Amino acid sequence: MDLNTGLLLFIPYRAFEQRVFAALATAGYAITPAQARVFQRIAPGGSRTTDLAEQAGVTKQTAGFLVEQLERQGYVQRVPDPADGRARLVRVAARGAEAVAHTSHVVAEIEAEWRAHLGDARMDEMRSALTALREITDPWA
Amino acid sequence: MDLNTGLLLFIPYRAFEQRVFAALATAGYAITPAQARVFQRIAPGGSRTTDLAEQAGVTKQTAGFLVEQLERQGYVQRVPDPADGRARLVRVAARGAEAVAHTSHVVAEIEAEWRAHLGDARMDEMRSALTALREITDPWA
Repeated sequence: MDLNTGLLLFIPYRAFEQRVFAALATAGYAITPAQARVFQRIAPGGSRTTDLAEQAGVTKQTAGFLVEQLERQGYVQRVPDPADGRARLVRVAARGAEAVAHTSHVVAEIEAEWRAHLGDARMDEMRSALTALREITDPWA
Repeated sequence: MDLNTGLLLFIPYRAFEQRVFAALATAGYAITPAQARVFQRIAPGGSRTTDLAEQAGVTKQTAGFLVEQLERQGYVQRVPDPADGRARLVRVAARGAEAVAHTSHVVAEIEAEWRAHLGDARMDEMRSALTALREITDPWA
């Protein structure tokens, strides 16, 4: 059956995500996919919750709730925004940085398996096409 | 920045999903992404809730809850399983089929835009690579 392109994207994405979360959970870093989608978009210098909400495609309330959970688990911390004393920025905390470091070798493992399955040329072309699609699908590209 | 392949898949997927749900909502078919992930996997002859749970990557409880919502909104119906009188199958109902029909022209529109952006060759190669990835990422391929 000819699946639509949305579903063709979703199937490998879900597999990727499940592998990463399983590896994180095994290593003691419990984090949900919803939390991770917000966490992944935190800018190096920190981000406002409203920006994280927009980038993760969730409501401001949901983002606030997820950031609170992440803060309680030690993955992020909230600090005053140097640009506006009344606003706060969400930053990656030490435990969050540890989880990211742990993730990177699982990600490398999955990418190596996919590369072995598709071959270098198809893997590179697929990544290049997906990167080009960001121009029309990612407002933060 | 070089994004990992998981995020490269997620970004266009999210844009695709948001377009489809916005179009459905405008046409009066309110359905959440979580409901749709279960709904999309219903087999032509109907599916058991446990199979839908596995295929959508959610718990049995969550799938049951989503199927109940879908049933209340008229998108699915539950019928006795002809193969096992005590079991029940989830089937697409008339309103569900209408929503699918409405979806297909939005999907075609998005695919045409992506094809125009990437060109025929890259779009076809990307779809072919994603289809090949199902062999190692989709247990129901």
